Amino acid sequence: MSLRLTILGCHSATPRVNAYPTSQYLEINNHHFLIDCGEGTQRQMRKYKISFSKINHIFISHLHGDHFFGLIGFISTLGLLNREKELHIYAPKGIKEVTTLQLKISNSWTKYQLIFHELSSSESETIFEDDKVVVKTIPLTHRVYTNGFLFTEKEKPRKLHIKNIKQYDEIDICDYHNIKAGKDIILSTGEVISNEKLTLSPPKPKSYAFCSDTQYKPDIIPIIKKVDLLYHEATFLEDRADLTKKTKHSTAKQAAQIAKDAEISQLIIGHYSSRYSNLLKFKEEAQEIFDAVNLAETGKVFTI
Amino acid sequence: MSLRLTILGCHSATPRVNAYPTSQYLEINNHHFLIDCGEGTQRQMRKYKISFSKINHIFISHLHGDHFFGLIGFISTLGLLNREKELHIYAPKGIKEVTTLQLKISNSWTKYQLIFHELSSSESETIFEDDKVVVKTIPLTHRVYTNGFLFTEKEKPRKLHIKNIKQYDEIDICDYHNIKAGKDIILSTGEVISNEKLTLSPPKPKSYAFCSDTQYKPDIIPIIKKVDLLYHEATFLEDRADLTKKTKHSTAKQAAQIAKDAEISQLIIGHYSSRYSNLLKFKEEAQEIFDAVNLAETGKVFTI
Repeated sequence: MSLRLTILGCHSATPRVNAYPTSQYLEINNHHFLIDCGEGTQRQMRKYKISFSKINHIFISHLHGDHFFGLIGFISTLGLLNREKELHIYAPKGIKEVTTLQLKISNSWTKYQLIFHELSSSESETIFEDDKVVVKTIPLTHRVYTNGFLFTEKEKPRKLHIKNIKQYDEIDICDYHNIKAGKDIILSTGEVISNEKLTLSPPKPKSYAFCSDTQYKPDIIPIIKKVDLLYHEATFLEDRADLTKKTKHSTAKQAAQIAKDAEISQLIIGHYSSRYSNLLKFKEEAQEIFDAVNLAETGKVFTI
Repeated sequence: MSLRLTILGCHSATPRVNAYPTSQYLEINNHHFLIDCGEGTQRQMRKYKISFSKINHIFISHLHGDHFFGLIGFISTLGLLNREKELHIYAPKGIKEVTTLQLKISNSWTKYQLIFHELSSSESETIFEDDKVVVKTIPLTHRVYTNGFLFTEKEKPRKLHIKNIKQYDEIDICDYHNIKAGKDIILSTGEVISNEKLTLSPPKPKSYAFCSDTQYKPDIIPIIKKVDLLYHEATFLEDRADLTKKTKHSTAKQAAQIAKDAEISQLIIGHYSSRYSNLLKFKEEAQEIFDAVNLAETGKVFTI
C-alpha cells in the first residue's frame, strides 16, 4: 500500500451532526498529509484514530470557512500536546495573518515553529518536493482564490531481480549495491550484463488529485491527466445546475466529465450541497458520463 | 419554567469524539443566550435541536480557543441561513479584530449586523439589560482577561389575587388594570383596600452565574450571593491541586467552597481536565464541602 486516503468530512457549508465539512487525510509513500481543515477536523481525526503527531504538512485549498475554520484549533491542540517539530501550512495568502492574530489574542503562541507557504500564483507550481513525493497546485476557479493539489509519488528505485542475478555465479552480494544504483555488470569474460536484465521495474508511481471547490474547469485536465485517483467536488445535481455559475461550484456530471477527459482511473465526488438527502443520485448522474465513480463518505478509506 | 440551561460542551482543552469544549445554551425569561462557543458548538446545537435563529446574544468569557474557536463558524452559518437580525457579541477586547479579519479573508461578510460589545473592565458591570433580564460580568482571574456572567431575571409584576378580589362586589374587571399597576382601590364607603391584599407576590426572580475559567477567587462571592444555579469550573481534583496556581484553574473542592460561601442553591461543575476519566471523583470531592453538586455532562439540561 502506498496511497491511502481517509475522508474526514465531505459536505459543503456548515458542520451538522453527521455531516462534516471538507477534510481529508492522505498517506502517500510514507508521508502523512492533511488536506483542508473544516471545523471539527480534529474531532474527526480522533474518531478515525489518526495520529496528530505524524502530520507535518497541511494543504488548504481556499479560505472559505468550511475548508479552514478547524485549522486554528488543530494548531492549538498540537501546542497542548507539546509538539516540537515544525508544521508546514500551504494555503492562500492571508492564512498567516489570521492564524497569527488568533494565536496572539488567545495568548497561546506555539512552542513549535509554524511555517507558512502562502500561495498566490495563478499557474500550477511545485510547492513541496522530496525524494518520495512531489506536490503541485492545480489552479481552480471559485469565488475566492483556490487551488487543488496534485500529489505524486516519486519513482522508486528498480528492485533486484534475484532469479536472474542467481544465473550468474560470478555476481556477488557485494555487487548488489551497484546493481541497485543502476549500473551494468561486466563479467570476467568481458560480457556486459545490462542493468535492466538484473532488476525489476518499480511499481508505477501513484498519484492523487484533490480538486475542491471549483466550477467546471477543463483547463485542469492536462495537469491531472491519468491520475490514479481524483477527488472532484460535486456540489449540485443537474436539477440545480443553474446555481453553478453564481456559486462557482460543479455538478456531479461535470466532475465526471473532467474525470473522463483526463482519463483518470477512479473518481471520488463530494462536497454535496445540504439541500440533498439522497446522495445516490450524485453517483447515478456522474455514471452517465464516467463509470468508476465513488461517493465520498465520512470515514471512508480509499486505497491504491 | 423560566430558567433552563443546556450543556453543549463541558470539557477543557480540545474537542475529542465525545468531549466538547465549553459552550452552554441558557433560556431565561424568554431570552435565548449562548455562553462560550468552543469548536464544534454549532454541531452540538444541531444535535440538541437548538434554534440558531433565536440566539441574539452571545457571551464569551475569554479568548482561549476552547471557549471561542467555534464562534466564527457559527457567525458564518447564520450568514448562510440568511439571518437578517443583528447579533450581539459580548467578549474581551480583540474579538472584533479577529472576527472581522476572518470574515474578510474568507470574503464572507455577513448581511446581518454584528454588534461587538468588547469588555475590558476589571470591575463587575452591567452589560445587558431589558425589562426581562439583566446580565452582569463577574471578573475572574485566569491566564488571560476573563469574565464570568451573572444572569438575573427582572422581578415580574404582582398577579391578581382573584379569590380576594371577588370578596368585593364593587371591584369591577375594569379595575384590574389599576390593580396590576400596583394601585390600591378605594371603595364607595371610603375604605381603602391595599394593593397587597388584592395581588399575589410574583415568583422570586431566578438567577444563574457562569464562572469559567478561573482560579479560586473568593472576591466573586458578593456578586453571586444566593444565586439559584452556579456553574463553576473544576479543572482538577485534589491530586493535582498543585497545578491550579500555574494554570489559574480551580479544583472541585474550591468550586464547592465558593458555592458554600456564596450560599447558592445548586452547583454545577465542569471543564474537567482530560487527564481524568472517572468524573464521579469530582462530585465526591466537591460534596465534602457542599452537598448540592451536579456534574456537567454534554447534553444535560438543568431547569429551575
